[in-house]
Amino acid sequence: MTRAAPTPALLRRRYRAVRAVTETLCAPLLTEDYQTQAVTEASPPKWHIAHVTWFFETFLLKPHHPDYRPGFPGFEVLFNSYYESIGKFHPRHQRGHLARPSVEEVYRYRRTVDAAMEELFDLLENTPDRTSDPTTTATICGFIELGLNHEQQHQELLCMDIKANFAVNPLKPAYRRDLPRRTVEATRPLRWVEQGEGLHEIGHAPGSGFAFDNESPRHRVWLNGYRVADRLVTNGEYLAFIASGAYTQAAHWLSDGWAHIRRHDWQHPLYWERDGQGGWLEMTLGGWRALDLHAPVCHVSYYEAEAYARWAGHRLPTEAELEVVLAQQALQGNTFDQGFLHPMPAGTDGQWHGDLWTWTGSAYLPYPGFKPLEGSAGEYNGKFMCNQMVLRGGCCATSLDHLRASYRNFFYPHDRWAFTGIRLAGDL
Amino acid sequence: MTRAAPTPALLRRRYRAVRAVTETLCAPLLTEDYQTQAVTEASPPKWHIAHVTWFFETFLLKPHHPDYRPGFPGFEVLFNSYYESIGKFHPRHQRGHLARPSVEEVYRYRRTVDAAMEELFDLLENTPDRTSDPTTTATICGFIELGLNHEQQHQELLCMDIKANFAVNPLKPAYRRDLPRRTVEATRPLRWVEQGEGLHEIGHAPGSGFAFDNESPRHRVWLNGYRVADRLVTNGEYLAFIASGAYTQAAHWLSDGWAHIRRHDWQHPLYWERDGQGGWLEMTLGGWRALDLHAPVCHVSYYEAEAYARWAGHRLPTEAELEVVLAQQALQGNTFDQGFLHPMPAGTDGQWHGDLWTWTGSAYLPYPGFKPLEGSAGEYNGKFMCNQMVLRGGCCATSLDHLRASYRNFFYPHDRWAFTGIRLAGDL
Amino acid sequence: MTRAAPTPALLRRRYRAVRAVTETLCAPLLTEDYQTQAVTEASPPKWHIAHVTWFFETFLLKPHHPDYRPGFPGFEVLFNSYYESIGKFHPRHQRGHLARPSVEEVYRYRRTVDAAMEELFDLLENTPDRTSDPTTTATICGFIELGLNHEQQHQELLCMDIKANFAVNPLKPAYRRDLPRRTVEATRPLRWVEQGEGLHEIGHAPGSGFAFDNESPRHRVWLNGYRVADRLVTNGEYLAFIASGAYTQAAHWLSDGWAHIRRHDWQHPLYWERDGQGGWLEMTLGGWRALDLHAPVCHVSYYEAEAYARWAGHRLPTEAELEVVLAQQALQGNTFDQGFLHPMPAGTDGQWHGDLWTWTGSAYLPYPGFKPLEGSAGEYNGKFMCNQMVLRGGCCATSLDHLRASYRNFFYPHDRWAFTGIRLAGDL
Amino acid sequence: MTRAAPTPALLRRRYRAVRAVTETLCAPLLTEDYQTQAVTEASPPKWHIAHVTWFFETFLLKPHHPDYRPGFPGFEVLFNSYYESIGKFHPRHQRGHLARPSVEEVYRYRRTVDAAMEELFDLLENTPDRTSDPTTTATICGFIELGLNHEQQHQELLCMDIKANFAVNPLKPAYRRDLPRRTVEATRPLRWVEQGEGLHEIGHAPGSGFAFDNESPRHRVWLNGYRVADRLVTNGEYLAFIASGAYTQAAHWLSDGWAHIRRHDWQHPLYWERDGQGGWLEMTLGGWRALDLHAPVCHVSYYEAEAYARWAGHRLPTEAELEVVLAQQALQGNTFDQGFLHPMPAGTDGQWHGDLWTWTGSAYLPYPGFKPLEGSAGEYNGKFMCNQMVLRGGCCATSLDHLRASYRNFFYPHDRWAFTGIRLAGDL
Ligand SMILES: [Fe+3]
Ligand SMILES: [Fe+3]
Ligand SMILES: [Fe+3]
Ligand SMILES: [Fe+3]
Repeated sequence: MTRAAPTPALLRRRYRAVRAVTETLCAPLLTEDYQTQAVTEASPPKWHIAHVTWFFETFLLKPHHPDYRPGFPGFEVLFNSYYESIGKFHPRHQRGHLARPSVEEVYRYRRTVDAAMEELFDLLENTPDRTSDPTTTATICGFIELGLNHEQQHQELLCMDIKANFAVNPLKPAYRRDLPRRTVEATRPLRWVEQGEGLHEIGHAPGSGFAFDNESPRHRVWLNGYRVADRLVTNGEYLAFIASGAYTQAAHWLSDGWAHIRRHDWQHPLYWERDGQGGWLEMTLGGWRALDLHAPVCHVSYYEAEAYARWAGHRLPTEAELEVVLAQQALQGNTFDQGFLHPMPAGTDGQWHGDLWTWTGSAYLPYPGFKPLEGSAGEYNGKFMCNQMVLRGGCCATSLDHLRASYRNFFYPHDRWAFTGIRLAGDL
Repeated sequence: MTRAAPTPALLRRRYRAVRAVTETLCAPLLTEDYQTQAVTEASPPKWHIAHVTWFFETFLLKPHHPDYRPGFPGFEVLFNSYYESIGKFHPRHQRGHLARPSVEEVYRYRRTVDAAMEELFDLLENTPDRTSDPTTTATICGFIELGLNHEQQHQELLCMDIKANFAVNPLKPAYRRDLPRRTVEATRPLRWVEQGEGLHEIGHAPGSGFAFDNESPRHRVWLNGYRVADRLVTNGEYLAFIASGAYTQAAHWLSDGWAHIRRHDWQHPLYWERDGQGGWLEMTLGGWRALDLHAPVCHVSYYEAEAYARWAGHRLPTEAELEVVLAQQALQGNTFDQGFLHPMPAGTDGQWHGDLWTWTGSAYLPYPGFKPLEGSAGEYNGKFMCNQMVLRGGCCATSLDHLRASYRNFFYPHDRWAFTGIRLAGDL
Repeated sequence: MTRAAPTPALLRRRYRAVRAVTETLCAPLLTEDYQTQAVTEASPPKWHIAHVTWFFETFLLKPHHPDYRPGFPGFEVLFNSYYESIGKFHPRHQRGHLARPSVEEVYRYRRTVDAAMEELFDLLENTPDRTSDPTTTATICGFIELGLNHEQQHQELLCMDIKANFAVNPLKPAYRRDLPRRTVEATRPLRWVEQGEGLHEIGHAPGSGFAFDNESPRHRVWLNGYRVADRLVTNGEYLAFIASGAYTQAAHWLSDGWAHIRRHDWQHPLYWERDGQGGWLEMTLGGWRALDLHAPVCHVSYYEAEAYARWAGHRLPTEAELEVVLAQQALQGNTFDQGFLHPMPAGTDGQWHGDLWTWTGSAYLPYPGFKPLEGSAGEYNGKFMCNQMVLRGGCCATSLDHLRASYRNFFYPHDRWAFTGIRLAGDL
Repeated sequence: MTRAAPTPALLRRRYRAVRAVTETLCAPLLTEDYQTQAVTEASPPKWHIAHVTWFFETFLLKPHHPDYRPGFPGFEVLFNSYYESIGKFHPRHQRGHLARPSVEEVYRYRRTVDAAMEELFDLLENTPDRTSDPTTTATICGFIELGLNHEQQHQELLCMDIKANFAVNPLKPAYRRDLPRRTVEATRPLRWVEQGEGLHEIGHAPGSGFAFDNESPRHRVWLNGYRVADRLVTNGEYLAFIASGAYTQAAHWLSDGWAHIRRHDWQHPLYWERDGQGGWLEMTLGGWRALDLHAPVCHVSYYEAEAYARWAGHRLPTEAELEVVLAQQALQGNTFDQGFLHPMPAGTDGQWHGDLWTWTGSAYLPYPGFKPLEGSAGEYNGKFMCNQMVLRGGCCATSLDHLRASYRNFFYPHDRWAFTGIRLAGDL
């Protein structure tokens, strides 16, 4: 299916919508919540909302808005995440040390950039030829689309990081006490989707809408016959793994994984805590809850996912295997739009998109013939293609219109503050 | 001079005054400023103002107020600094990770404790016999006095820690832009105060007002003849030390000091920065300022103080030597009450109390016959008597009514975020 | 080509030969050299020669020699490298702290195990049915072959680790001053070997001789058309990369690589040193030598290999691409048997096997359908399949009869004490 | 008592004797033992025997032997311990990484320096005026005496470091299995030696024989009345401290001490191990032995000594208190010369000199008026006067003729690989 590139008018509507989502997401936060960085891998919410704004300022307003004058000295450095070609950036682990700019000033920055973006949209819609030559409207629109998808990624990061910040607090505060939930009576048996051996194409098909550069080029890959589970591994199933003594037996683990769980004394997924009565509590964006045995196990590292799969007599899918199957499923699921902000038990349908990013057995590497974007945007994805593993499928904090089967997410094997889960696979 | 123990009525007035000073001190802070912990040795202002309140709750209200019911669950742990005998405490380096309780709730805590303290004062003034036996009014008053001096110590810490938080910010914000200053035309020559050899008494004299337990017992000490400079070493004088290549030559330094300055690449005092035109800027609570060559050099470690003194052909005084001389000087100087919040150039008079705590060549150890306070308050000072050096004299962030000649401050030899300076001494 | 499994008689001859090579390799060492562990990733030579002996004792003598009685208490733990299923092992980074057992005792251990292995060979040759049922002769022979290939791997490690130990010594000692060298007048142009797109088979073909478990199963893989350079990148070529300022410009590097070279202040390959006259010296097993500009650049990390290739306008080959081409080349080259113990300049022929392991762009992961060996030997390779990159082709410290096109070596991206180099590739 | 300075002839005899002791001490070592550095604070025996030789070469032969030509390139740097004014030195924690020079070459170095020293003695005895003017014979003899005392200090370090190296080895080897022992039936009650208040003199009296610079100048000190125990605390007594739960209760410990024992999980003195039957084993230079309950507790840190003393209702003596009492006792005891190389139970006499260095409550600081030696030798002691605590009394590894009441030893509060013990004191 070929999708036409979005028009400036459409992009303006999407711009307003996406930007509004970010602010709605932050609405329950106190000023203090905006400021905190409880773990190094997370960033303070204040930093996120300034950084996504910086992205529009840097990649759209400065190069393409003829009259834009930056009005917030120092922000260029403070809110650059990691773009070496743009200039210096403040060390990531010190983002939480910056009381200033205040939350109020960061919102002023947002409003200033939003106003200038509206002007840019005016230009694009009314007098496209006034945009500085030789940059075409198409290029500008491409960057706007990138900026919107970027902001959607940071909405997901906001969910992850807010959770991390709340989780360390002994007072056990909740981001929102009013989150909806869905429950089931029992975990339904998993069903396998089978796929015969053959040559497949994976990656982003040109003309089929937005994708990040790391999803291209579309290319052929040979796959042996395989099968993939139609739902995620549950908390109840994972508890059996724990009960078997898994966290105390080297035999189950990759060597680096075993070293890591020993060094950090891991005995269960992140955000779990014993309830003192033989059960478990789990930290969610809705606060601490009794662990739902039928819901997908969440916040596991690659080490845990890989060990569980092997212990269960299966394996993780490769990213190609999973993409082929995901591409066959309707693009729907427990995504950010559903409002649960937590993985929910599988219903009778397949549990494919949303809920949790599932670890694949594939390292994050360039596709054959990969070319990063031109200019500074080339640093977006390419330079991270080492030491990380690919995850697929989106999660309960991913917007549905930000998702597609070819989407490649990636984290280090030990990372587990993202909404990560386990999907089983096997050979035919 | 014997000073009578303060009456409940007097203590109530002091309580109100000291508590108000803390809040005035914090008035210029934004909510974000309250929340930040930029360096591990510092604490967020929010934590300070809760902790000093916790101190009154823990040592006065819980044991001595007959009707007091703690209303802030979790605060007992969160705002306990280091009292092992009272219970667990939140790790110091994670104080900045706690978005909650909010600043607003912490002030609600303050007001709640203040109200209960007023009731306790009522009891003490009106019906002293209602206070739970066998605790006498004297004991309670002693703890109140301790709590007030404790809060004054934290006022000084607030000044230090606010400065540390502001200093890391590339936007170069200032705590207060309106701080007064005092300048002189030239650095006046230093004069020596001489003291012949003999037996001296140092330490706190019973009945002479409040003192911490570590200042007792008063005891005899033999001193050889010595002399002490009547003013502090200036920035200009210290610059000559730097210009001589001091930070690149091992010969000047204690072995541990040399290792430390190499490891941390120290090349000048803390909070200094080159101005790009051959001069220096210095971070102050009034913001970044051109370095005043006639003002005392500030934010130096023991390693730097000791090295400078040796390089200059002198030495640091011992704590006994300095106390003997300080006790002869009028109790006045550039203290917190003056409002400079920064050391100021010496005038024609001696520069003795205030301005900067000066490093002595004495390790922080118990006085002969030292007995810590009974109970948990015994952890206040005694357990830190190792690995630290004594400083004397108070500083520009010390309240005058909190100061006395026998006051023993102490920091690790590498610490320099306190208001520390250098006073020279020598043998006769 | 199908190769028959080796007979016990043949294995005995190989056993004697391989064991003798290890001892010849160690002959130039002083007792002190045997004892040293200068970097954590290396092991003391004494440990290596005991560990390879432990391998035969553990996997052959204990399970399969009916009368074998272990006579060296404690060695089971000391010389177990990482086999969790066998029991505890001494921490790797403390191997150099063990003065005892002495070198002499370790050789006594070798001789004891060698004698018992001769008895096992007698049993296998003369009365194969006496070996404990149901273990068949074939199984035992398989483990012997594994043990011999294991010892050959450790011969290569010995070369690497001896070099590491000698390199840190300011006295600049050499392992052997009499190593031969080969020089050329000029670097010859590189030629490309091209391969059209298509389905290929890679991995170990059953019945074609020994291979480690990680080389199986043989499987199909789709490759786009590509080309591979027929020689390695030279020191001269790499110097141009350095001269371009590569080590100071983030743009060339993977994000993790840039962080690593900054943290460790890398400015050139390992074992390079400026000669003080504008040139470079390089540490070799023959001592420090002037850098040969025509010889392959050696001791580079994956980060450096990947950055160089990109800077040069090319890329690294994948492991499948390289295996396909290597399988077409005669199995010969500058291997351990040639005695250079250092990479040599390419002659007019292709430079394919030997000289240096070349980094591929492939992460070390299980092949589709991979099954580790049964029992403890399953820990040999499988548990390391994370966070490492594959290298191919063997090196100047690899024995020719230990080498084959399907051989998968693997190191962490930052490792560079192995004999590692760079081979370029590109798309057609 | 004034002692005449030693004549060259006497010094020659002492030189031969002291140097011989070092070699006798090392005689039981294998080459591998010479090479090992199991913990960073210890040095390999090979390094010690080269370094003490370097000391004579550097401070005697190079400046004062007219014909001496250094013949061992690189040794100047390798065997310089920490004399910044002499030049670079090899990092301490990498001493164990130097396989070369070999043990044999280090002995060749010793013999070369010994021969040249004999020539220097010839010069001093026969033609003192040929020694380079204006250096007088007295100065040279002073340095020789310093060199001999330095070598004796390193003999003690050799005992400590050999023990550390042997202790980490799971094979439980012993330095010497034939060491003598002394036992008693029961721990005798301790007796107190009392001292009334008054002015005392401590420090080295000029003309009374050799002393290090840090023991001068002799000076007055006021002491309140006090008492000191006439024997050391025993293992049995210390076990009661452990049994009381001391290592799990913060209340007993200095704050830094508690942090240290938590971080390193200390639960008993260094070199202790449970014997599996309710008792304890202790590592000694004679190998692992059942803990002798009547022998002094050994290898405790200052933190443990201080905590024990407080728990027992006493305190540690200050260095002045202890020196005053030690000076009253006969200079005899369980020193290196006795050959036990381990502390022995107190007999009926006082246990004063030897056995174990006892921690004092005094920080290691300069005496009033302290002047370090001229030149590089000034780095011997002075630059370490920070962060360490003073120990007094010598130990079972200290030669008797190297000992005196004014001797100041010093270690960091957490150090415990030296022969350290506990002596109680109290106020009168
Ligand atoms: Fe971003
Ligand atoms: Fe406090
Ligand atoms: Fe091995
Ligand atoms: Fe020494």
